[in-house]
Amino acid sequence: MSRVYNFSAGPAVLPEEVLKEAADEMLDYKGSGMSVMEMSHRSKVYDDIIKEAEKDIRDLMNIPDNYKVLFLQGGASQQFAMIPMNLMKNKKAAYIITGQWAKKAYKEAQIYGDAVAVASSEDKTFSYIPDCSDLDIPEDADYVYICENNTIYGTKYKKLPNTKGHTLVADVSSCFLSEPVDVTKYGIIYGGVQKNIGPAGVVIVIIREDLITEDVLPGTPTMLKYKTHADADSLYNTPPAYGIYICGKVFKWLKKMGGLSVMKERNEEKAKILYDFLDQSKMFHGTVVKEDRSLMNVPFVTGDKDLDAKFVKEAADAGFVNLKGHRTVGGMRASIYNAMPKEGVEKLVEFMKKFEAENA
Amino acid sequence: MSRVYNFSAGPAVLPEEVLKEAADEMLDYKGSGMSVMEMSHRSKVYDDIIKEAEKDIRDLMNIPDNYKVLFLQGGASQQFAMIPMNLMKNKKAAYIITGQWAKKAYKEAQIYGDAVAVASSEDKTFSYIPDCSDLDIPEDADYVYICENNTIYGTKYKKLPNTKGHTLVADVSSCFLSEPVDVTKYGIIYGGVQKNIGPAGVVIVIIREDLITEDVLPGTPTMLKYKTHADADSLYNTPPAYGIYICGKVFKWLKKMGGLSVMKERNEEKAKILYDFLDQSKMFHGTVVKEDRSLMNVPFVTGDKDLDAKFVKEAADAGFVNLKGHRTVGGMRASIYNAMPKEGVEKLVEFMKKFEAENA
Repeated sequence: MSRVYNFSAGPAVLPEEVLKEAADEMLDYKGSGMSVMEMSHRSKVYDDIIKEAEKDIRDLMNIPDNYKVLFLQGGASQQFAMIPMNLMKNKKAAYIITGQWAKKAYKEAQIYGDAVAVASSEDKTFSYIPDCSDLDIPEDADYVYICENNTIYGTKYKKLPNTKGHTLVADVSSCFLSEPVDVTKYGIIYGGVQKNIGPAGVVIVIIREDLITEDVLPGTPTMLKYKTHADADSLYNTPPAYGIYICGKVFKWLKKMGGLSVMKERNEEKAKILYDFLDQSKMFHGTVVKEDRSLMNVPFVTGDKDLDAKFVKEAADAGFVNLKGHRTVGGMRASIYNAMPKEGVEKLVEFMKKFEAENA
Repeated sequence: MSRVYNFSAGPAVLPEEVLKEAADEMLDYKGSGMSVMEMSHRSKVYDDIIKEAEKDIRDLMNIPDNYKVLFLQGGASQQFAMIPMNLMKNKKAAYIITGQWAKKAYKEAQIYGDAVAVASSEDKTFSYIPDCSDLDIPEDADYVYICENNTIYGTKYKKLPNTKGHTLVADVSSCFLSEPVDVTKYGIIYGGVQKNIGPAGVVIVIIREDLITEDVLPGTPTMLKYKTHADADSLYNTPPAYGIYICGKVFKWLKKMGGLSVMKERNEEKAKILYDFLDQSKMFHGTVVKEDRSLMNVPFVTGDKDLDAKFVKEAADAGFVNLKGHRTVGGMRASIYNAMPKEGVEKLVEFMKKFEAENA
């Protein structure tokens, strides 16, 4: 067995020890005589798994008691509808457009009410985060929506928008658990887990309790009401049980690593290695305004499409895989989530140096 | 490691060799250097997995070309809304109420239009399937809805309802791939996979192409339109990729076993062992009308709650687990899905005989 360095934007690399544990427990979870895949979600043994997972993410993120943690399905794309269906009491919301995912969320919200784009960085291919210190947010907006880390474009909010007292809703799919966060600043923090936490098919929603009500838009499916899942502790129907179990293992791994402050340091250190190289390279260049750079997703280009393609191919042959950039940015993108070891980034930079020397 | 006999109604037992393969491939899927959990769903290696899974279920069920196979999320509960949102053009549908899940689907449909209960077996705790040869189905009903195998109550339609020319929609969660089926008799066949096919978090929808349209009810979320997923071959957003991979392995296992005709024989043989015993036992009794008995879920009672509880406990201690019946039926329930070996049923009956002798 030989593992590659996997720079996929998601689904993405997971901690090797988590995968090893999962493999070891596949046929018999802790003496239960069965796989976690085979367990009734109403059984005591599974209840312990989901409760422990919730406890651990609460510890990691320091989630206050007046927030619920929900393990749901359908990915961020389903949240794009669920958020307005549950929150748009005044049928108005403010969206900040910093990439494809924010834009999709904004378009979906228009089905349900008056979604207003209060800022956008589309003019420069989403290569920066707009100034959000004094936005023209409608008084009666039910919430302000952001995508906090933009996977495709490699930007991240370093400062949250001034919502002027409105509820902040954030998609954190690609920066989930990558650094400490002040949950009290948000009404909803949510993300698909398939980048930093676990296998695709689980979305975690952290929601302030006052936002969970029966007063949803007419026609909202039972499964798309936060209240349905909050009242049932995420067990209204069969949850994506195996995925939640893997998430739980990643939470334990994060705790063992020292928690989110330590992860932030590690992630800063890893990103610095790559950004420092990009800043001095004569061949490779970052595509993002420096102060808005993501710690998780690092897009870069050579400026020459053929050379980009040659690099992606030779890198893959050398064991650095999934480096091709998104078609809207071109070039390359290295996603360096929590589970990417520092060594992976160091070796990638070594390889880039060698490639630059050989192709100068 | 010691595996139990797991009679859980779902999530449920999976073939041991599928679990072994999954464990072996956990850190490195076929030389890719990564787990299937870590793969981009847009990668060639994953595309092969999902395409092969679709091909195999098409082979197994002999699915005609004018039906799409969709791998979705949200379980059957989400289909309860998705079906009327997509199909209720006339805002009318006929529901046959044969258990809790059919009833939930019926209630959800009432959010979207005039859902009419055209038959029910609730008068006798859903212990039979109503006569569906000449139902009073509204002329303009968009579809007729059934739950084909009733997990909680242990009944199954042995003959499909006479829909009088209307589209038939069937939830087959608990009898999926347990016997051959004539797909052309249905407009939609769907089911959560967590009983007969794979880990919870995947729902498979087999839908006739003419039912996939843009003409859905106003307010239908993008993610709840069949067209969204059909147009993107189930890759509109990140699918529950690892779950689909396990489903694919189960499809291969079913093919190796000989396909659905062989599975039907095996399942009939297994069920007969248990039903024959129940029919002659002086202590244990089946709860369902004989001609409507499910091959998958076998509820039984002693008629004495304390004795039931004693049985469930002693059975669990002997390695026969998850035999407690649903609270609405009481007593016991043995779910004997595809992956339950004949030996498991034989040993359970041996244990029941011994228990009966000891407690007569």
